[in-house]
Amino acid sequence: MTLTVQNVLDKLMEPIGEIPNAVDTLVHGDPNMKIKGIATSFMPTCHVIQQVVKMGANLLITHEGLFYSHTHNTEILKNDPVYDEKRLLIHESRVAIYRFHDYWHRYQPDGIMVGLVRALEWEAYVSEHQPAATILIIPKMTVKEIAEYVKRRLGIPFVRVSGDLSAPCTRIGLLAGYRGGGALSIPLFEKEGLDLIIYGEGPEWETPEYVRDAVHLGRQKALIVLGHAESEEPGMKYLAEWLKVIFPNIPICFISEKPIFQVV
Amino acid sequence: MTLTVQNVLDKLMEPIGEIPNAVDTLVHGDPNMKIKGIATSFMPTCHVIQQVVKMGANLLITHEGLFYSHTHNTEILKNDPVYDEKRLLIHESRVAIYRFHDYWHRYQPDGIMVGLVRALEWEAYVSEHQPAATILIIPKMTVKEIAEYVKRRLGIPFVRVSGDLSAPCTRIGLLAGYRGGGALSIPLFEKEGLDLIIYGEGPEWETPEYVRDAVHLGRQKALIVLGHAESEEPGMKYLAEWLKVIFPNIPICFISEKPIFQVV
Repeated sequence: MTLTVQNVLDKLMEPIGEIPNAVDTLVHGDPNMKIKGIATSFMPTCHVIQQVVKMGANLLITHEGLFYSHTHNTEILKNDPVYDEKRLLIHESRVAIYRFHDYWHRYQPDGIMVGLVRALEWEAYVSEHQPAATILIIPKMTVKEIAEYVKRRLGIPFVRVSGDLSAPCTRIGLLAGYRGGGALSIPLFEKEGLDLIIYGEGPEWETPEYVRDAVHLGRQKALIVLGHAESEEPGMKYLAEWLKVIFPNIPICFISEKPIFQVV
Repeated sequence: MTLTVQNVLDKLMEPIGEIPNAVDTLVHGDPNMKIKGIATSFMPTCHVIQQVVKMGANLLITHEGLFYSHTHNTEILKNDPVYDEKRLLIHESRVAIYRFHDYWHRYQPDGIMVGLVRALEWEAYVSEHQPAATILIIPKMTVKEIAEYVKRRLGIPFVRVSGDLSAPCTRIGLLAGYRGGGALSIPLFEKEGLDLIIYGEGPEWETPEYVRDAVHLGRQKALIVLGHAESEEPGMKYLAEWLKVIFPNIPICFISEKPIFQVV
């Protein structure tokens, strides 16, 4: 039986129904194209798209968009040579590219979070999956020990930490992607009695500064910032595993990217 | 002659006129209080407020707000013990706190940018002050050399870099604070022929990923991320220097904070 791009998209959206104004869309390609192989990635970089071609796949499912904008705004890229060259590369690749973002977050539990918790091998410590955060109760470790553990498990070269590295932690709030904003993160400390929040990305003047004041006032709170891609890549790796179960006869793999930042 | 808090505020706003809906406001204290001394800082942390008291000053002028929110939203902090303790600390300090943000950015050139360029000792290399960015033409250095130079000049422990560390640079775009968004930063590369952008903070999936693709396509572009506070502290230090000229008989100093993040 022929499997088309649209068949895969339908299967991915099926458990959720329709989300109005979702950013999820087939950003390139023909929905009726026959699937030869599927790749997943966090970001559809030029390098990732070339890898998809090399492995003989023709559908790339990514979490973020093609052109450095959450809302697919390309207005600022008019006459930009990187934009022009990337569009040519995409066109020549003949790879269909689907952005799977809002739907994957809306799975119960959030597919990105499931992948992150699995990568951390913390499944047994999940206390509650909330819509935007997961509460974990782990055996006591210091912030430093957790930072080292998280780096090792996720294979990332560094994390940024606000607060006291020696503080003992058992109650952790975990937030993937750009969910580190104060409005989401800060109330969790008090409401959930957290010792530590671990998030992907958020404004530096919000949660990190709350933690700074909390520590100054004698409270052992801390924050570990993973990086946006670092917090969501495991969820797209998990998506590849999940697709293998649904489409056992199709070659499927996850493509990782190098960390976006080096620390100097 | 008695100098009041309001006199200082009037002097600071005088060159600009009124900015509608500015976030700048006297967030605590009595505008009619007599000034004993002035301190400036990037962020009014608990530690900074205690330092103001110690030095015998009673007006603190900061760039960011008191409670981890650009728009002074305290709704999420109801019943939060850190919020309650900080409010008590502020009340007992009897220090007036003025947030000087939009007005300082609106100076010609932007006061925050002037402080940053001075701290970097790059005054002679300024090609153009645009409203949100300053274009610099420096003697050729690699990205790595610039990163090390910037760290040394600003006294910061690390920067994050996207792109090729060995790329030679002469044309730099410098953006302070949260001006690292793709809509502001990305077009500068092409429009200004930049080799390198240096900014405070911005979304990780925008400019850093543009640079990643650009480098993959053979273009020697790079990005150095200073950190939000790291990019704006020099502008608040410069404000203290500037105030000393206007109010020569008042004790005035800048209060620095520790970096908000440690890298682990």
